[in-house]
Amino acid sequence: MSLDELINPRSVAIIGATDREGSVGFEITRNLVTKFKGNIYLVNPSKGEIMGLKVYRSIEEVPHGVDLSIIVTPAHTVPEIISQCVNKGVKAAIIISGGFSEVGEEGARLEREVLRRAQGRLRILGPNCIGVYNAYNGLDTFFINPQRMERPKPGPIALISQSGAVAAAILDWAARRGIGIGLAVNYGNKIDINEAELLEYFARDPRVRVIVMYMEGLKYPGEGRKLMETMKRITKVKPIVVYKAGITKSSGRAVKSHTAALAGSYEMYRAMFRQAGAIEANNLTDAFDMAKALATQPLPRGNRVLVITDSGGAGVQAVDNLEAVGLSVPELPQETQELLSKVLPPFAAKSNPIDLTGSATDEMYRHVINTVLPTDMVDMALIIAQMQLPGMTPGLAEYIIEARRYGKPMVVYGVSINDDARTFKAKLEEGGVPTYDRLETAAKALSALFQYSRISKSNAQS
Amino acid sequence: MSLDELINPRSVAIIGATDREGSVGFEITRNLVTKFKGNIYLVNPSKGEIMGLKVYRSIEEVPHGVDLSIIVTPAHTVPEIISQCVNKGVKAAIIISGGFSEVGEEGARLEREVLRRAQGRLRILGPNCIGVYNAYNGLDTFFINPQRMERPKPGPIALISQSGAVAAAILDWAARRGIGIGLAVNYGNKIDINEAELLEYFARDPRVRVIVMYMEGLKYPGEGRKLMETMKRITKVKPIVVYKAGITKSSGRAVKSHTAALAGSYEMYRAMFRQAGAIEANNLTDAFDMAKALATQPLPRGNRVLVITDSGGAGVQAVDNLEAVGLSVPELPQETQELLSKVLPPFAAKSNPIDLTGSATDEMYRHVINTVLPTDMVDMALIIAQMQLPGMTPGLAEYIIEARRYGKPMVVYGVSINDDARTFKAKLEEGGVPTYDRLETAAKALSALFQYSRISKSNAQS
Repeated sequence: MSLDELINPRSVAIIGATDREGSVGFEITRNLVTKFKGNIYLVNPSKGEIMGLKVYRSIEEVPHGVDLSIIVTPAHTVPEIISQCVNKGVKAAIIISGGFSEVGEEGARLEREVLRRAQGRLRILGPNCIGVYNAYNGLDTFFINPQRMERPKPGPIALISQSGAVAAAILDWAARRGIGIGLAVNYGNKIDINEAELLEYFARDPRVRVIVMYMEGLKYPGEGRKLMETMKRITKVKPIVVYKAGITKSSGRAVKSHTAALAGSYEMYRAMFRQAGAIEANNLTDAFDMAKALATQPLPRGNRVLVITDSGGAGVQAVDNLEAVGLSVPELPQETQELLSKVLPPFAAKSNPIDLTGSATDEMYRHVINTVLPTDMVDMALIIAQMQLPGMTPGLAEYIIEARRYGKPMVVYGVSINDDARTFKAKLEEGGVPTYDRLETAAKALSALFQYSRISKSNAQS
Repeated sequence: MSLDELINPRSVAIIGATDREGSVGFEITRNLVTKFKGNIYLVNPSKGEIMGLKVYRSIEEVPHGVDLSIIVTPAHTVPEIISQCVNKGVKAAIIISGGFSEVGEEGARLEREVLRRAQGRLRILGPNCIGVYNAYNGLDTFFINPQRMERPKPGPIALISQSGAVAAAILDWAARRGIGIGLAVNYGNKIDINEAELLEYFARDPRVRVIVMYMEGLKYPGEGRKLMETMKRITKVKPIVVYKAGITKSSGRAVKSHTAALAGSYEMYRAMFRQAGAIEANNLTDAFDMAKALATQPLPRGNRVLVITDSGGAGVQAVDNLEAVGLSVPELPQETQELLSKVLPPFAAKSNPIDLTGSATDEMYRHVINTVLPTDMVDMALIIAQMQLPGMTPGLAEYIIEARRYGKPMVVYGVSINDDARTFKAKLEEGGVPTYDRLETAAKALSALFQYSRISKSNAQS
C-alpha cells in the first residue's frame, strides 16, 4: 500500500472542520479551501456550511470517494471515526489530534484501539502531528496562520521531521529565503507510518532530489536497523542530509519529554549515518543550505577548490573554512598564474585564492573562471562577490551561470544585502547556483557535494 | 600623544578632495560634507569649489587650525604632503592611498620617507587603509558608496580590523541588523599607529564597552609580546573578542599575499589570546553577536542556563548547543517543578528545558521567568520564542525586559521573521536584551559572558 493517498490525494475530508478562528480545525480548513487542488469535504456533526462549503455530519454521509481523512477531533472520538473511515473506503488518515501515548497509559490504549480499528486497510500518519505540507497540490495541514508562518515555494527538497514545531519554523525560514521545499512531513507518535517508509516514498518521487531529516531519537525495538537499511538503499540514488538533535545527556532528557523517544548514544547514530551514506549536518539551517547545493550542483571529482575573491580577508577566511571541512585550496601552477596576469591588475594575488582586490570587475571574475575552472587543477569553485565595489554589478551572475557548462559545482558567498547584492543573489539562485551569507555554510555545502560524490562512487563500485 | 585628533578631530582636511564621482576622494569628501560634525577643509591644487566648499591649493593655505589630514593622493606625493602637514601643525594623518610597502621596495622606501618627514610630530594611520568610521561625529573615510554599504548606528562596540574590505563588509552587515558600532578602524600597513595603541585608546573611551578585533597576522618583531601585554591590561576593564583568520598553511599563504603579515602558528595565537584574557570567536559575525551580549548583559556567577521554549525540538537543540560550549542545563528540583505546575498546562515539560508546547502564552513565559530566574538554581536564561503560536504576542518582550531586574544575563532566540517576530525582537534589542536567529550563536553569546565572568574574577584576584 503506497503513501500516494497520504501525500498526493485527489480528495480530502476534514473531520472536525470548523469556522472558529484560531482553532486547529479552522486553520486547516482555510488552508485547504484556499489552496488544495482536489475535492474537499468538510465533516462536523454540528454545522451546516463553512466557507461556502456544505458540512456533512459524518464521513459516511459524503456522497463521493475520499482518499484522505484529516482528523482534528478530540482523542477519545478518534477510534470510532477511524472505523467510519474504513467503512467509507478512505485509504489514509492524518490524525492531527494530541492526547494519545504522549499523555500516558489511557492515551496509549486509544492508540492501540485506533490501530485495531484501521484493520490494515487505512494507513495512519500521527497521531499528535502537524502532518503534511505539499507545495505542489496545496495539501497543507500545518495549522499555523500564514501570517505567522510563510510557506515555501515548490522545490526539489523534501523534509521528514520528528518535531512539528521544528518543521513549521524551518519551513517559514526556508520560505523567506526562497528555498524551495516541495514536500514536508511530521509523523508525530508514528503508530503506523514511520520515517523509513516516508524515505522510501520520497526516494521514488521524481520531484524530490534531496531528502532532509530532523531526528531526535527512535522509539521502537528494531527501528534503527530498518532505518539504516532503508537509508543505505536510498543514498545510492538520492542524497539524505540528516540532523540529529539530542546528543548529550541533558538533551536526551529533553528528547524523552518531547517525543517520548530515546535519544540513544550519539556515537551509535553517527556510525549508523556513516554506514548508511547519509550526510550529517550540525543544525537544520545548515542541512537545508547543504541540500540547496546537492539539489542543484553536479558532483565534484575531487576536493580541490578554486577561490575567487574581491576581499583578501574573505579569501583568507574561506581557506580556513574549506580546510576545516576537509577540502583543499591548491596553489595554482606558475604558468596558470601567468595566464591570469595578462588580464588581472599587477597587485591581484594569482596563486589561489585569486584576490582581485578593490579593483575587481565582473570581467576579471569571468576571465578567472573561464581560465581556471575548466582545467584539471580544480574540482569546484567558491566565488566571493560582495557587491560593495564600484566595478562589480549583478551582471556577474550571468557569467557565473554560463560557467555551469564546465560541469563543476559552484557556490557564491556574499555577506552584503544592498540592492545590487539582492539582485545578484536572486539571479544566481534562479540560474541554479546556490548563494550563502556565511563562509562556514558555503564551505559545508561544497563539502556535502564532495561527501556525496564519494558515497555514490563507493555505491557504484559495490 | 593621544589618538584624539585621529578619532575625534574638531577639524579635518581632505587632501586630494575631488568631485569625480566613483573615486576614493569623492566618496570621502561626500561622506564628510554630509555628516562630519566639525570643520572641513578641502585641498586640491587644481580645483576652485567642490560641493559648495572652497578648495585650497595646499594644506598650508588653509587659514584655520587642522587636527587631522586625510590623504588620498598618489603615493609618490605623500612625503611632501606630510612635510606640509607638519609645518601647518596638523596632529594626525590618515593615509588612504596605496602603493607603499605592499607593492615592493620602492613603496617601502616611500614609507620610510613618510615616517622621517613626520618627525614624530604627526601621528599616522596607514598607509593603504580604509581608515576610520566614527558614528558619533560623522568622521567616515570608508570610501564605499552608502547605497552599497550601510553605516551602523552609534553603539557600544568598537572594531579594530586588519582588513579594510572585511571591516566594510561587516559594518554593512551590522548596520542592517541594527547592531550599534560606534567606532571602527582599519590600520593598513601600520607604519606608526598599530592595533595595540588603538586598543589602549578604546579601553579609555567610555563610549566603548566591548572591543572586537579582526586579525590575520603580525608583521614586526616584538609586536606579539607588546600586543599580549596590552590585551592583558585591557581585559581587566573591558572584554576583547578576537577573530584570527589564516589558521592553516594554505590560508597563511593567502594572508602573506593579502596583508604582507605572517599568519604564524595558530596554536601560538590561541595561547596568547588565552593568556591575555581575550575571548576567541570562530568568525566575525559570531564575534559581533558575542559582543552584543557582552555590551548589554550582566555577568553570570556560574554556567547554569535556564531554557524556556515553545518548541520541544528547539529546546533539545538548545541543550546540545549550550553543552557544546561548556554551559549546563540543570534539571530543576521537584519543588520548583511543582510551583510551575500551578500555572503551566499538565503536558508542559517542567524539568529544564521548560517546554511550554504549542499552548505557550506570554503569561506562561512570565511565570516561568519570575519563578526560576531569581533563584540560585540558574545563572542565566536562554529564551526561545518563535512567535508562530496563537498564544504569543510581541508584548512578551516587556516581561523579559522587566526581568532584567534579577541581574542575570538573558538572550532570546527565534528563527521566525514574521511581523510579530520583528516587532518582538526590535523591542527586546531596544530594551537591552540581545536576540539571535541561530541557537549556536545564542549559546556562544552566553558562553562569552561566562568566559568573561571568569576572566574578570581571576583579574580581581590577581
